[in-house]
Amino acid sequence: MNETDSLNSAGLAATLRRIEAGECSAIDVINACFDRIETREPDVGAWQVRLSRTGYLHNYQARQDFYQQSLLKGLPVGIKDIIDTADMPTAMGSPIHQGRQPIEDATCVALIRAAGGIVLGKTVTTEFAYFRPGKTRNPHDLARTPGGSSSGSAAAVADAMVPVALGSQTAASVIRPAAYCGSVGYVGSRGEFSLRGGQPLAQSLDSLGLFARQVEDIQLLRAVLLRQSALAPQPALKPRRMLLCAGENVGDTAIDMNTALQQVAERLQQAGVDVIWLDAGTRLQQMVTHHGRIMAWEVCRNLVIESQQPELLSEPLQALMNDGLTMPRADYLTSLSAADSTRDWLWSQHDQVDAILAPAAPGVAPQGLEKTGAPHMSRPWQAMGLPVITLPGEVDRDGLPLGLQLIGRAREDDALLRLAAWFEQHIIR
Amino acid sequence: MNETDSLNSAGLAATLRRIEAGECSAIDVINACFDRIETREPDVGAWQVRLSRTGYLHNYQARQDFYQQSLLKGLPVGIKDIIDTADMPTAMGSPIHQGRQPIEDATCVALIRAAGGIVLGKTVTTEFAYFRPGKTRNPHDLARTPGGSSSGSAAAVADAMVPVALGSQTAASVIRPAAYCGSVGYVGSRGEFSLRGGQPLAQSLDSLGLFARQVEDIQLLRAVLLRQSALAPQPALKPRRMLLCAGENVGDTAIDMNTALQQVAERLQQAGVDVIWLDAGTRLQQMVTHHGRIMAWEVCRNLVIESQQPELLSEPLQALMNDGLTMPRADYLTSLSAADSTRDWLWSQHDQVDAILAPAAPGVAPQGLEKTGAPHMSRPWQAMGLPVITLPGEVDRDGLPLGLQLIGRAREDDALLRLAAWFEQHIIR
Repeated sequence: MNETDSLNSAGLAATLRRIEAGECSAIDVINACFDRIETREPDVGAWQVRLSRTGYLHNYQARQDFYQQSLLKGLPVGIKDIIDTADMPTAMGSPIHQGRQPIEDATCVALIRAAGGIVLGKTVTTEFAYFRPGKTRNPHDLARTPGGSSSGSAAAVADAMVPVALGSQTAASVIRPAAYCGSVGYVGSRGEFSLRGGQPLAQSLDSLGLFARQVEDIQLLRAVLLRQSALAPQPALKPRRMLLCAGENVGDTAIDMNTALQQVAERLQQAGVDVIWLDAGTRLQQMVTHHGRIMAWEVCRNLVIESQQPELLSEPLQALMNDGLTMPRADYLTSLSAADSTRDWLWSQHDQVDAILAPAAPGVAPQGLEKTGAPHMSRPWQAMGLPVITLPGEVDRDGLPLGLQLIGRAREDDALLRLAAWFEQHIIR
Repeated sequence: MNETDSLNSAGLAATLRRIEAGECSAIDVINACFDRIETREPDVGAWQVRLSRTGYLHNYQARQDFYQQSLLKGLPVGIKDIIDTADMPTAMGSPIHQGRQPIEDATCVALIRAAGGIVLGKTVTTEFAYFRPGKTRNPHDLARTPGGSSSGSAAAVADAMVPVALGSQTAASVIRPAAYCGSVGYVGSRGEFSLRGGQPLAQSLDSLGLFARQVEDIQLLRAVLLRQSALAPQPALKPRRMLLCAGENVGDTAIDMNTALQQVAERLQQAGVDVIWLDAGTRLQQMVTHHGRIMAWEVCRNLVIESQQPELLSEPLQALMNDGLTMPRADYLTSLSAADSTRDWLWSQHDQVDAILAPAAPGVAPQGLEKTGAPHMSRPWQAMGLPVITLPGEVDRDGLPLGLQLIGRAREDDALLRLAAWFEQHIIR
């Protein structure tokens, strides 16, 4: 790795420490990111719209004193194009909103700017954060999907174009693309962050998400978004007992994924962690169905302006909305209740475990760009409103990323990230 | 009541039936509303911005065929000025956003327009739906507050300027002004409606609200907002057992309010309904505190753009946000958990009751316009995410409105409205 590579491929917190130590400048890092983007963007296609290098440096220099004294030092951040920005269009991956220019920053964007982050650009999202893919390709294999819906954020961070990016998850839209692209992806507990200015898809499911290369970077961004002190990340925490969720509890998974989870289980036991294997019966498979129902009911009641232009909506989205419109309300209410009762069952049956470890996706990123992969491995946890983080690092026999996910208790996001930091240091390659 | 009065003071559903029957035209009703506004608006001050009569009729006539065939027939609707509208500014009661022109309708607005409602104007809100009042006066006594934060919507509906209006509630912002002004006010269960385009204050507490003159009008609007059939409202439902919550469970209430609740209890018993009096110990008083903490934590993490202009924020709002910024996160999490456990206690201890009846406010609207009254009577139910409806009709010895509130189980809004319709027909004067 040459000097330029290391400048743009290190984690956010590590880079900030180097800048503080005088080993490099923010402008060096910014230039390294733009070098990478210029080389790779024609292939990867992570960006919907972005600043030019000149424009970025102009913005930086216009407020250089502020940035130099700021927490984030003027380093670049990618923002999923479902999140409003006052200085760039937010088109939500849909021709309906081409060129749509919001009048305000989303709250999460305002917080990042106030902390000294600069929005380099808007990252590609699938259509309204649902299924229809954008132009993004998987940086590990351009013939494969990056996953969705936060396709551009996952790919841009994994491909070293920016250190961090924002996304959102309603089904699997952070955890899956992070797994496929090999970035760290974090989904906050339901209700954890302000979603003001993030265009909603389904209010009972939507969560803000973050992409980074190291868990400490997620901790840093989380502190910024919660207006908490970001000076010292909470230290890594070794779990005493882990609940492992084999893919079969939820749905189909690839052999390589099952092997990876098995190997991690062995490493955990060698490290002195108790490992329990979850037997959820059919509960999590049912949660996949319940999640889909909640989503269908709510999406057609959020995308109302858009449903007035059906000719500009993809077929899968039209089908989802039609399902929601024809669904009996009783089914929706049953699914909401099932999410609550399954969450209660899960933690009351396993009250001594620190977190759950499960496949983050069925396997590696599938071949082809016409779909973003199956979302079922995320649906149960998302329906239950739990915080989740993708841990990259495992690979299949061809070296493609195989992501695992660590799932915590609702609102215990801080503890989850401390556990994730321990996994990163001791368990995942 | 003369013909013009009855045209603009009847309920929405009743008016629609008259139009269908050919007894009057939509234009007659529209004109009656404008007559009333022209007479009363200089005193009441319900509107932040609104169409002129000419402008309204122009809009109506430009799409007359659509309106005549529509559910809502082109009748006027008021929209709280915290909810985005593409054709009128949305200033949120703050000088920071004076003239702020959203690029899109909120989803609730789009649904009402699609059903044939016409947005007559934006109704006055307190600053960001918190405490600092706007210009609105109570239509029953201009020297008294209309309550807040949905001040203009409550007053406009109670004063027969429009048949229905939208509001929002984070603490007491629908239930209290409805009680003070004498309109029916409904707050949906948490998560029930899309809040897209409604500017958020606190994501764990915000709910959409509706104002009308009859419960059947609320049922009609609710169907529109949920894209459900609005053809036949669900029939009134007599409760078998009611849980009555005397004000002392929550906090101070006036003698007249206590008397009103006692009298309603007697009428319920005469009607053959079992009445149980709630003994919540200190639980609901504690919920008042917990609600305040959740609100403080979240408001300062939503109003981020605005906190960058502190000189344009009111002192109470600054104080709330400062409380939120200095609050330990553990206190916030404790309050969230307390809301869940108190809700579980409430319904598990009283599993046979159909709903709860409680004072909707401490008493009648207080004298003076510098404050909007105390919110404590709503805070517990709002923290628990329950659906609530203000039932107007009771009055104090001076004839001023004394509102009661009916509180239902989470997500059982339909049942709550059926019970409310029965109260309206049989119990409340």
